[in-house]
Amino acid sequence: DDAGWLLASGFIIFTMQSGFGMLESGLVSKKNEVNIMVKNTVDVIFGGISFWMFGYAIAFGIDTVPGRNNPFTGIGNFFVDGHVNSSGWLYTNFFFQLSFSTTSTTIVSGAMAERTKLDSYCVFSFFNTLVYAFPAHWIWDSKGWLRQMGVVDAAGGCAVHIVGGFTGLIATLILRPRIGRFSSNYQPEMSSPTNAIVGMFMLWWGWLGFNCGSSFGVTGHLWKFSARAAVTTMMSSIGGGLYAIIFSYIAFKKKIKINHMINGILGALVAITPCCMVVDAWASIVIGIIAAACSCHGATLLARIRIDDPVDCVATHGFCGMWGMLAAGLFAQKELTDQFSIYDGLFYGGGMHLFGIQMLAVVCVTIWTLVTSFIVLLLIKVSMGIRLTEEEEHLGADAVEHAFD
Amino acid sequence: DDAGWLLASGFIIFTMQSGFGMLESGLVSKKNEVNIMVKNTVDVIFGGISFWMFGYAIAFGIDTVPGRNNPFTGIGNFFVDGHVNSSGWLYTNFFFQLSFSTTSTTIVSGAMAERTKLDSYCVFSFFNTLVYAFPAHWIWDSKGWLRQMGVVDAAGGCAVHIVGGFTGLIATLILRPRIGRFSSNYQPEMSSPTNAIVGMFMLWWGWLGFNCGSSFGVTGHLWKFSARAAVTTMMSSIGGGLYAIIFSYIAFKKKIKINHMINGILGALVAITPCCMVVDAWASIVIGIIAAACSCHGATLLARIRIDDPVDCVATHGFCGMWGMLAAGLFAQKELTDQFSIYDGLFYGGGMHLFGIQMLAVVCVTIWTLVTSFIVLLLIKVSMGIRLTEEEEHLGADAVEHAFD
Amino acid sequence: DDAGWLLASGFIIFTMQSGFGMLESGLVSKKNEVNIMVKNTVDVIFGGISFWMFGYAIAFGIDTVPGRNNPFTGIGNFFVDGHVNSSGWLYTNFFFQLSFSTTSTTIVSGAMAERTKLDSYCVFSFFNTLVYAFPAHWIWDSKGWLRQMGVVDAAGGCAVHIVGGFTGLIATLILRPRIGRFSSNYQPEMSSPTNAIVGMFMLWWGWLGFNCGSSFGVTGHLWKFSARAAVTTMMSSIGGGLYAIIFSYIAFKKKIKINHMINGILGALVAITPCCMVVDAWASIVIGIIAAACSCHGATLLARIRIDDPVDCVATHGFCGMWGMLAAGLFAQKELTDQFSIYDGLFYGGGMHLFGIQMLAVVCVTIWTLVTSFIVLLLIKVSMGIRLTEEEEHLGADAVEHAFD
Repeated sequence: DDAGWLLASGFIIFTMQSGFGMLESGLVSKKNEVNIMVKNTVDVIFGGISFWMFGYAIAFGIDTVPGRNNPFTGIGNFFVDGHVNSSGWLYTNFFFQLSFSTTSTTIVSGAMAERTKLDSYCVFSFFNTLVYAFPAHWIWDSKGWLRQMGVVDAAGGCAVHIVGGFTGLIATLILRPRIGRFSSNYQPEMSSPTNAIVGMFMLWWGWLGFNCGSSFGVTGHLWKFSARAAVTTMMSSIGGGLYAIIFSYIAFKKKIKINHMINGILGALVAITPCCMVVDAWASIVIGIIAAACSCHGATLLARIRIDDPVDCVATHGFCGMWGMLAAGLFAQKELTDQFSIYDGLFYGGGMHLFGIQMLAVVCVTIWTLVTSFIVLLLIKVSMGIRLTEEEEHLGADAVEHAFD
Repeated sequence: DDAGWLLASGFIIFTMQSGFGMLESGLVSKKNEVNIMVKNTVDVIFGGISFWMFGYAIAFGIDTVPGRNNPFTGIGNFFVDGHVNSSGWLYTNFFFQLSFSTTSTTIVSGAMAERTKLDSYCVFSFFNTLVYAFPAHWIWDSKGWLRQMGVVDAAGGCAVHIVGGFTGLIATLILRPRIGRFSSNYQPEMSSPTNAIVGMFMLWWGWLGFNCGSSFGVTGHLWKFSARAAVTTMMSSIGGGLYAIIFSYIAFKKKIKINHMINGILGALVAITPCCMVVDAWASIVIGIIAAACSCHGATLLARIRIDDPVDCVATHGFCGMWGMLAAGLFAQKELTDQFSIYDGLFYGGGMHLFGIQMLAVVCVTIWTLVTSFIVLLLIKVSMGIRLTEEEEHLGADAVEHAFD
Repeated sequence: DDAGWLLASGFIIFTMQSGFGMLESGLVSKKNEVNIMVKNTVDVIFGGISFWMFGYAIAFGIDTVPGRNNPFTGIGNFFVDGHVNSSGWLYTNFFFQLSFSTTSTTIVSGAMAERTKLDSYCVFSFFNTLVYAFPAHWIWDSKGWLRQMGVVDAAGGCAVHIVGGFTGLIATLILRPRIGRFSSNYQPEMSSPTNAIVGMFMLWWGWLGFNCGSSFGVTGHLWKFSARAAVTTMMSSIGGGLYAIIFSYIAFKKKIKINHMINGILGALVAITPCCMVVDAWASIVIGIIAAACSCHGATLLARIRIDDPVDCVATHGFCGMWGMLAAGLFAQKELTDQFSIYDGLFYGGGMHLFGIQMLAVVCVTIWTLVTSFIVLLLIKVSMGIRLTEEEEHLGADAVEHAFD
């Protein structure tokens, strides 16, 4: 049953790939609409093969030689293949973890939109698994050093969203802004706001699978954590949506900005991800409201300092991932579920202990991400190039990199 | 396991929100396409927060003071929050019921399309929870007065669809028709029939979750009711589709009208909703055929008497919800499942008893809905206004109420 | 629980209908976009009613007179209706099998795109159930003659995809190519590559339900087969995607052809369908790579010999279905799961025995399909006509066969 629950959650998480695809393709200009859908496909294909080859081994592999697995990396289960008796759980876990890994990479595709060569992107999504797999080991594997300290990251606020968001930051810095993005006569173009909202909806429902599935089962008491995760996830997104809609209504003369609404809801979903099992419903609303502030104003701030993030993934995933991790250090109640948090948060008498661990995880994973993704992307840039030529960028990636017959 | 089933069904039901969004945005004119997607988002945000605040309390709340809960309203569990030991089931039920509540509100957005102010709509979707929560208590709570009489409404034909449909009727009457809708040179505009059909598909599959999930589990014998619901839901929609396609083919010179096809299938899904657990497969086909007639001809009739319902939600949800409730009084067989019906219907030797109860529920809930939604919408109209200005309506809500950068 | 798993899988499979619809409507020209969505709806409506009337009876019916069911056909359960005690499992199985049957028919709609009369298509989709139901009985019913020989077809490589693909071949041969398709100045038109990729995504995730659900449960050891199916399905599609993207990149001057990418991924999903439970992860990658070669080059070959298959369903479903069936004869390991294969494949010491059975199934079902679908389609052609007039084809089916108000 637990396996059934995980498999079903894995399916739901994969539907998020469609959601990211539609969201991003709706937000970018018409001439790059198809290209970004292809990049979302590439994340599954190239990111999937490398996760099978070495990603799972690093994150969750179990060596046959005892003692070689360590707090920093797993070793074993390269080229994942199941033996007769052991394959059930290995395959279930691999499938579920694969859906997380490809999600982490796909977040980055938004930051690289409209100016990245497709072949370079393929190479990037293959090697980005490395950037993801180590933090996943630290946080989720039973031997991981952060896990052993008692870090709280139920469904990937740190391992998925901080990694994805800050890889996106490095990517957009290495790529530099799109042509004319910060010129005075810049005209934003959104190919299809309708598709973008449909994509947001798909992510929303997929996120429920993401967070609920992270209870790792429904047997025993596990279903109670799934139920809590479902409610806190919904209520956080509701809080985020309230903030974004009301802020946009007040600040922009009664107009609801589509980007704000989307960023607010998705940012709230990111922030509740690490702490969905360990907080109360009212706390999840507060977490969502603050997250929406982080993503909406964070995106505005990044644009002001001329960092070009076409679909605001740095603010939404990076900043809100950070906030969610810290929020766990504030709002966690161990009595709700000592499986997912063995300490109380600051507001529940646990002092700074859990908050400190969460802060440590945020800092270490952020630094890890910035350094390793910089190395990966720089190597790609110097070896094969990473950016379209100026002419290609004007024509658009759809015309330059694809054929339709 | 039952909780897992409910949570999974809840996810599926939330995907219906995407379906309603795409259906409505595909059916309205291009200049209101995004606005109606936003309204579907608002239903979850504003309808969700009010359901958390007081909707669940009214519908299913359990007071700590015994005896204060009564047949008319629940009292308790305001601002739903789970304590350590009790939170599992409370959260599961809240999440599942939340998906019903937001669906009820979202039905109305179609009837209000293309001419309603977004801020007024936000206020409406917040307070519409009141209109929904009382009938939900009467019908589904163990203390509800209709439940205690033995009313049959498995998955919300009355509490969701009659409430949603007739609130839509009041809304369109208060709003009055779109400019030029009943002028002689009216040209209907459908922004994307393809999206509308994709939306219909999403609703179709979501409805299976809606109806099957309403068995409230898969343990013991509950899975048998889920299986029955899956089959009757499919067969009813097939019956409805057959009627709509064949009727349209005959009446319109071999042309299949897209609206008719959609109305027929969705109307049949509405009608089977209350009785999906208690009827045979052949009966579900008959119910679907008659429902398609109600929705197709009902929509034509409403247009003839100059009631402007842009996406035909009154006929599809209101009329077919009524028919489905009455159909339960005709076709129910208590031996199939005495949990969902303790009486036989008229055609199975139960006489007029169950039919009478169903009729009573239809009449009472319809009157309740007409009166309370009239009060809510009138208060909004006189306090903040409800309709766009003529100029704004010509420009379209997308341009007037949104920004895309 | 097993029933819950099957019902949930059935839902997921029905979402594939949306996927096929979006894929096909994205790939055809703008003037036939809606029509093909309607045809996908018709598959559920008309194909569904005939599967209820006689399809299930032929495929899985159990006669009350013992001995009348035989290896060639089932007899019983016409007009499927459940009695009180037996209805649970019957309904569960009917619902799950219905989703397979309508999928088989819907494959054909692509081959018939842009030139088929809608009324003829309705009749076709009603009677196509006959073409499907017999092979389904042979392969899946406990009395079926291929099943009794030990054929391996976990999730319908033969019964669904070979049947669908080769019915498509007959259909396109009887219809003849679209006007101007093989003229020198033919300009392909793709209404929406974005929608086509979204459709591909939906099919991808739906396929996971298709294949995992075919374990028929999650109790006992069944969940292990679901887990294996999830992994082999993903890895095969990854292999297929790798081949298609890299081939397209090399052959078309660094351009990724959208059709190739889609055909490669879907072809790999088709090929893994029959053997998803009985092969290792690495084998599934190999199977996917070869499948992508079959679908990409097969489609090119068919176009060269002037067979007009607008969405490449013959190569993707027919050829890859054949390859997948044979692959089971090569890569199957009975020790992985003797429930789904009682013999080892050629590469695992089983000799030619299983390969021979698989070959026999492929040959017999292919011949059956070619003959019976030819009869069905020819009867439709001579009785009511099957093709739009030249003028109608130029106008497009959307304008000719539909109304939008």
